[in-house]
Amino acid sequence: MYPKTLTKLIEEFKKLPGVGNKTAERYALFVLDLSTESVESFSNQLKSTKQSIKHCKSCGNYTEEDLCDICRDPKREQSIICVVSNPKDILAIEKTGQYTGLYHVLGGLISPINGVMPEDLTIEELIERTKKDVTEVVLALNPTMEGETTSYYIAKKLQDIVEVSVLAQGLPMGGHLEYVDEMTLTRSLKNRKKFDY
Amino acid sequence: MYPKTLTKLIEEFKKLPGVGNKTAERYALFVLDLSTESVESFSNQLKSTKQSIKHCKSCGNYTEEDLCDICRDPKREQSIICVVSNPKDILAIEKTGQYTGLYHVLGGLISPINGVMPEDLTIEELIERTKKDVTEVVLALNPTMEGETTSYYIAKKLQDIVEVSVLAQGLPMGGHLEYVDEMTLTRSLKNRKKFDY
Repeated sequence: MYPKTLTKLIEEFKKLPGVGNKTAERYALFVLDLSTESVESFSNQLKSTKQSIKHCKSCGNYTEEDLCDICRDPKREQSIICVVSNPKDILAIEKTGQYTGLYHVLGGLISPINGVMPEDLTIEELIERTKKDVTEVVLALNPTMEGETTSYYIAKKLQDIVEVSVLAQGLPMGGHLEYVDEMTLTRSLKNRKKFDY
Repeated sequence: MYPKTLTKLIEEFKKLPGVGNKTAERYALFVLDLSTESVESFSNQLKSTKQSIKHCKSCGNYTEEDLCDICRDPKREQSIICVVSNPKDILAIEKTGQYTGLYHVLGGLISPINGVMPEDLTIEELIERTKKDVTEVVLALNPTMEGETTSYYIAKKLQDIVEVSVLAQGLPMGGHLEYVDEMTLTRSLKNRKKFDY
């Protein structure tokens, strides 16, 4: 019913998270009404963002350089590392403005059921980093089964090397860090406590 | 806070209808997790769909050729023309499977307040088309102030040339044709009545 190429564009929009048939149709038809320049700018931006965004060689955050803005900033506290599962969580924590240390992106959470084992995450790299003048590691993982398992695993590994703290409970159970509101996240950061072995 | 190119991509997604900051961020971060091939396919499809979709020379519908699928289909009734404001409305009507005639896309609705006058629409082209063996014109415009003004204007123009009918009331007032459910639209098509001068 649609011209073939329009159907293909609808299929592309349907790949976006939370986008069903109706919304994808709406986006695709909207694109047809845009100027050719606008569509080209959108199209080029997609490609160039994907090409230029890499992972920071030190912490794993998104960056356009070898090291991310945070790792390159000499004003950040170098002695404290906040551990998150993915770069989106860094963005959420930065928005609170409450944290001035460095980060470490694990690249996921331990989840044997999904085939993610400790060695699939950057835990060894984290241990290496904590050996260099680091005084505190803050575990800021999702308050889910996987997050807590991973926190426990890492806390055990770091027990004799460095002080380990976790975000205060107050995060809603089963929630995902990247969608938590800033106030809750701020409070969790302020009330972070020693890891309870 | 975001790398610059990521911010630019978020801005692009925010142009889509109904997409705010949070959703645009979600889409952009999702794109970063896609494979390079997937992003290129999305990017290319945007450009190529925009390039290849044109307006049918006869009715104004979306098409990849000079004439759209409907105008080229000899099985469609050539003696009845359904007038819609834009091509999206054709898709909505086609989904009902109740209409077998041709279409005519006005390219908008008369709206002096927005500077859209009758001469900005394809009303003259419609009048020309109705002079060639057309027995009925069905007005299928949004049941809004603009839609009804436009219907009245066109009906007056066609009064002495051809029989004019309108979709049955039953469409919710203030609604937009492209979002109406198929059952309501089906009933409106079946119960279409002569224009009430």
